[in-house]
Amino acid sequence: MIFPILFLFSSLFPLAFSNEHFNSHLLPRPLILEYPENIIESNQFKELENELQLQCTSWRFAVEANNLNPWKTIPQDCAEYVRNYMMGRGYQVDLERVSNEAGVYAKSVQLNEDGKDAWVFDVDETLLSNLPYYTGHGYGLEIFDPLEFDKWVEKAMAPAIEPSLKLYKEILGLGFKVFLLTGRNEKQRSVTEENLINAGFQNWDKLILRASDDHGKLATTYKSEKRNEMVNEGYRIQGNSGDQWSDLLGSSMSTRSFKLPNPMYYIA
Amino acid sequence: MIFPILFLFSSLFPLAFSNEHFNSHLLPRPLILEYPENIIESNQFKELENELQLQCTSWRFAVEANNLNPWKTIPQDCAEYVRNYMMGRGYQVDLERVSNEAGVYAKSVQLNEDGKDAWVFDVDETLLSNLPYYTGHGYGLEIFDPLEFDKWVEKAMAPAIEPSLKLYKEILGLGFKVFLLTGRNEKQRSVTEENLINAGFQNWDKLILRASDDHGKLATTYKSEKRNEMVNEGYRIQGNSGDQWSDLLGSSMSTRSFKLPNPMYYIA
Repeated sequence: MIFPILFLFSSLFPLAFSNEHFNSHLLPRPLILEYPENIIESNQFKELENELQLQCTSWRFAVEANNLNPWKTIPQDCAEYVRNYMMGRGYQVDLERVSNEAGVYAKSVQLNEDGKDAWVFDVDETLLSNLPYYTGHGYGLEIFDPLEFDKWVEKAMAPAIEPSLKLYKEILGLGFKVFLLTGRNEKQRSVTEENLINAGFQNWDKLILRASDDHGKLATTYKSEKRNEMVNEGYRIQGNSGDQWSDLLGSSMSTRSFKLPNPMYYIA
Repeated sequence: MIFPILFLFSSLFPLAFSNEHFNSHLLPRPLILEYPENIIESNQFKELENELQLQCTSWRFAVEANNLNPWKTIPQDCAEYVRNYMMGRGYQVDLERVSNEAGVYAKSVQLNEDGKDAWVFDVDETLLSNLPYYTGHGYGLEIFDPLEFDKWVEKAMAPAIEPSLKLYKEILGLGFKVFLLTGRNEKQRSVTEENLINAGFQNWDKLILRASDDHGKLATTYKSEKRNEMVNEGYRIQGNSGDQWSDLLGSSMSTRSFKLPNPMYYIA
C-alpha cells in the first residue's frame, strides 16, 4: 500500500520535501489514479466511452449520408453525444464548412443575364435555428410534438444560422434569384416572414409554404413539385441548401445540393 | 526538482520501497506528467489533437454528405486521421451499418413476379476493397496514379468488403436481379470477374464496364446512361450501393441509395 509509505515520507522529510511540492506534485490525484483497481475501472470506462463515441459517430454519418431507414427519434444511447455535438463546436464547424463550400461553388457559376439562375433554401435548421426549442426537448430524443413546435414557431424567435446568413447574402449579391421552400404551413406565412426578417434575411424572391392541397404529401414530393414549377417557369436551379435529404432529392434536382447537418430529426 | 529527491528516496529506502512498487507506481510516468510545464504542453497537445479530430471529422462528414467541391487528395493534416479511420474500427462499423440498413430495406421491398426488380452494386470500395493498395499509397494522400492502380487491379487480389458480401448474398437470396456497374475498363473484364469470384461473389446478372465509347465521360454520366438502359429494359432499380455519389446520383436513380464510406478518394 502506498499511503502509509507516503505518510512516512512526509513525516520523516518535512524539510527536504516541502509541502508545496508535496501537494502540487504527489498527492492526491496521481497516486489515487495509480491504484490498480482504479486503473481498470478507469480503462473500462474509457473503453465504454470510446465505443459509444464510435457508434454514435457512425450513426450520425449514416444520417448525413442518407443511409438510414426513416427514424422517429435519435438513439437513446446517443442522447448525450447529440447534445454535445449540437451545443459544442462540432455543429458550428460543420455549418461553416457547408456554407463555405456552397459559397465557393456559387462564385464558380456563370450566371446568365436572363435572371433565371436560382438558389433554393429550406428554412428550419437551414436558415433559422430551432435549437432553443430542441434544447428543451431532448435534442431529438422526444418524439416530435407538432402542437408544441407550432407554439414555438408562433413566437418568431428562431435565430439565424449565422454561416447560412452569410451564404444567403453572398448568393443574393452574386445575382441569384432566391427561393425559400419550407414545409411550414401557409397559415404560418406572416410569422415566418417576421422571423426571417428579425433574423436578418431579406430580399428573397419567393417564400413557398405548404398550401392546403399540399398537406399529407411527403416532403420529397411537395418540394419536388415546387421545384418542377420553378423549372417550368424557366428557372435553372443551380444550388439548393437544406438540412433534410427530402429538401434535396426527387425531381428537378439542383445542379449542386448542400446538406446541412441535422442529427436531431428526420423528415421523409 | 523532483528527480534528485526521488533518487534520494530510492537510495535511502531500498527495502521499504520495493523496486516493483517504485517502478510501477511512481516513476517515471505520473511524476513527469505532474511537472507544471509538462501539464501545459500536454494540455496544448491534447487541445491541438482534439481540434484536428474535430476538423477532420467535419471534413469527412462533408465528404460523405457530398458537400465538397471535387477534390484530388485528402487534406495533409488529416492523413493520420484517415489512416486511423480506415485501419481502425470506424470504417468497419460504418460498413456494417450501411449494409444492415440496406438489408432491412431490401427485405421490405415487395418484389414483383416478373423478375424485374434490380439492385445495382458498384465494385471498387463497394464489393471489393483496395485498401491493400491504398495502404501503400498514403490512404488518399498521394495523387491517384492510374497506371500503378491498374497494376494492382491486374493482380485480382482485392479482398471482399465482408459486410457487402453478406448484403450481396441476401439481395440475391431475396430474388433481386444484381447488376454490377463499375468504372473499370472493359479490358479489365476477365481480371475483374476472377477477382470477384475469388472474393466470394457469384451469380450476378450483368457486369457492366466502361466500353471504349464511355471513356472521357464523367462517372455520373456513364452510370446514369447505364441505369437508363436498365430502366428502358423494364427493370425497376430498387436499391443501389456505392461508395461514390457519382454511383448514386444522376438519372434513373434508385428508389433507395446506400452510400458506403470512402474518405480516400473522390470520383466525379
